[in-house]
Amino acid sequence: MTEFFHVITADRFLELLGRFPRLAGETIPLDDALGRVLSRDLACPEDLPEGARSTVDGYAVRARETFGASDSLPALLSLAPPVVMGELPRFRLGAGEAAPIPTGGFLPPGADAVVMVEYTNAAEAGSIEVTRPVTQRTNVLEKGEDARSGETLLEAGKELRPQELGFLAALGVTEVPVYGRPRVGVISSGDEIVPMERKPRPGQVRDANGHAISALVRDSGGLPALFDIVPDEARRLDRTLGDALAGADVVVLSGGSSVGARDLMMETVSRLPEVEILAHGIAIRPGKPTLLALQKGKAIVGLPGHPVSALVIAQIFLAPFLRYLQGARLVKGPAGHRLQAELSTGVHSTIGLEEYVRVRLERSDGGTTVAHPVFGKSGMLSTMVRADGILQIPMNAEGIPRGALVEVTQY
Amino acid sequence: MTEFFHVITADRFLELLGRFPRLAGETIPLDDALGRVLSRDLACPEDLPEGARSTVDGYAVRARETFGASDSLPALLSLAPPVVMGELPRFRLGAGEAAPIPTGGFLPPGADAVVMVEYTNAAEAGSIEVTRPVTQRTNVLEKGEDARSGETLLEAGKELRPQELGFLAALGVTEVPVYGRPRVGVISSGDEIVPMERKPRPGQVRDANGHAISALVRDSGGLPALFDIVPDEARRLDRTLGDALAGADVVVLSGGSSVGARDLMMETVSRLPEVEILAHGIAIRPGKPTLLALQKGKAIVGLPGHPVSALVIAQIFLAPFLRYLQGARLVKGPAGHRLQAELSTGVHSTIGLEEYVRVRLERSDGGTTVAHPVFGKSGMLSTMVRADGILQIPMNAEGIPRGALVEVTQY
Repeated sequence: MTEFFHVITADRFLELLGRFPRLAGETIPLDDALGRVLSRDLACPEDLPEGARSTVDGYAVRARETFGASDSLPALLSLAPPVVMGELPRFRLGAGEAAPIPTGGFLPPGADAVVMVEYTNAAEAGSIEVTRPVTQRTNVLEKGEDARSGETLLEAGKELRPQELGFLAALGVTEVPVYGRPRVGVISSGDEIVPMERKPRPGQVRDANGHAISALVRDSGGLPALFDIVPDEARRLDRTLGDALAGADVVVLSGGSSVGARDLMMETVSRLPEVEILAHGIAIRPGKPTLLALQKGKAIVGLPGHPVSALVIAQIFLAPFLRYLQGARLVKGPAGHRLQAELSTGVHSTIGLEEYVRVRLERSDGGTTVAHPVFGKSGMLSTMVRADGILQIPMNAEGIPRGALVEVTQY
Repeated sequence: MTEFFHVITADRFLELLGRFPRLAGETIPLDDALGRVLSRDLACPEDLPEGARSTVDGYAVRARETFGASDSLPALLSLAPPVVMGELPRFRLGAGEAAPIPTGGFLPPGADAVVMVEYTNAAEAGSIEVTRPVTQRTNVLEKGEDARSGETLLEAGKELRPQELGFLAALGVTEVPVYGRPRVGVISSGDEIVPMERKPRPGQVRDANGHAISALVRDSGGLPALFDIVPDEARRLDRTLGDALAGADVVVLSGGSSVGARDLMMETVSRLPEVEILAHGIAIRPGKPTLLALQKGKAIVGLPGHPVSALVIAQIFLAPFLRYLQGARLVKGPAGHRLQAELSTGVHSTIGLEEYVRVRLERSDGGTTVAHPVFGKSGMLSTMVRADGILQIPMNAEGIPRGALVEVTQY
């Protein structure tokens, strides 16, 4: 098996990920729905507000009776009963009347505007003076003005933030239809790998990938299940992969970076019934030896063996894929802020490979942001820790010169 | 009590928030620590790697024995036993020898470099030809090169991302010291407010704030506890506030926006034993009537009554404050991406008030982002839902003209 079997571009890889269907919708309590994405349009069940409400403290009036009012020539109105919070006024505002109303109070029938308390004076007992005119609907939130019964309230694909939850609560929408969260089986394999709790014997190393990938899955809204570490034995790998596929929507494998370990992973995946290998390699650096397969509707992602490459691929493709399965738009790269920065050192790149360079960001005195490429041998986890952003060099570029303005995605 | 009693600037309000001490540290399992902030420096417990490892598939050699090697004049080396993954080589590499080694394998004693398999040929039985010279340490990750025992691994204040979790797992750090998460009591009050599950009677409205604020607390890493809605009665409010303070680090009140309801909130907070009112009003729009108090080390935040103002204040101050208590730097505003956008409509502002304008962002054909101010009456929740960003107009500005470039924080 050659290493270049089925090597595809990064954009093609993304396109293949986009062919997987989104997860089925589920209905969940509103208070659990923060960050989830609506799987259906939501229709507005009732008018909000249900009747006209005042937006200020003042007096409910008939607007036309304040026409021409001023400090020198105020309109004199007689006091109607006050509007009480939490109750609908049981009286009708008569001609020449003004009803005290607090912010949020419902207007009595007959009233069509509210005069702010600042523009009134107490007058003889049982009446007030209005010193500014108001027009109809002034300081009034009308019935259905915030949301109207029957209209589309929020569209499918909308991510629910605190403000949407508040809006829906106000309308009595206590449950919402959202895309499901992907269950993700995470498998680390390798004869040299031991669990993090164990002291490695000479020649062994602790599992880093399992914990980093599980955290990234959680960060992307997925539900990770971390399996026991599997040695490089076909039968053990077969069994663990089968177990993982049985309970997951996506299985992520990370194995050794030696050719032997990678071939073993490829062979194991290929032996699955009804499996289709979609890609075996991406024209990308780091992370070329990445595997993507489809088995009975489930996605299998084989990450490159180097922990650094594995995490880069997970950030560029796996995290967006998991968010996509939950309803988000599929875009390459981490979900972080994008910002412009000046490259402090030129970086070379190979034509035909899309390269990702990790950078450390520094705010310069002049206010611009400087991106320092983080160099280091492959396999050095500390390079990932030192980086706080990543930049992409396109496939057809030979590199980026020092001083160039680049777009960096923070993570 | 006048409305302008204790009105302070937004920056002064932030400074007062910054006087609260951060939450005490706690030690938690590594796999639960995603997004948490280290409360102490972490020292590196051991060298990573524990011995020199190969970064490629190839042959471990003595570098000087490849000096001058080329396709036409290869160095002939005899094969030593292969390095096996997961085991420390039990032999010493002798003069004139090369040991097959997979990526990640530990170098045998005596070897000081690795030749990539691509630069070797099989030769007569039991030996190989090397066609490129290597220098010492080529393709080798040395003992302690990724992390060195005793050095500071990660500093206090570092937020733990998936890559930090992987790095720490590799070093056997299975527990980490992090700042605690704030317990936040959330109280909605108002005679007209009913729980979202209940159909409001005429004149009543459902609680929106409680759910939006609880979600925002969760989004900021806090642990919200939503209390039963309290009517505008001093005794009931006293009791609920006392209950909330007993079990929380921060209590957030949101009440009515009428003067009466606000005064009641202020009086209730003022009656608490050993309470200090730090602010009663911020020179900001929306959100002026905001209360901040300190009681026995706990923070009490009284949000403005209008749901929209309440949520803006929560995004500008409460969310950053909760992140600060957990170890983050205290900065005003939502945690979202900041981006430059062109303002589609001029906006006016009042000198002496820091104003926040919600905007809807649109990507124009030319690639620039356009920010459309979202207008609407105060109290309209739909304006919060339509907005996907917010921009700040400084205190001393009269507004921002149409077409100006502004910095928008997405949320």
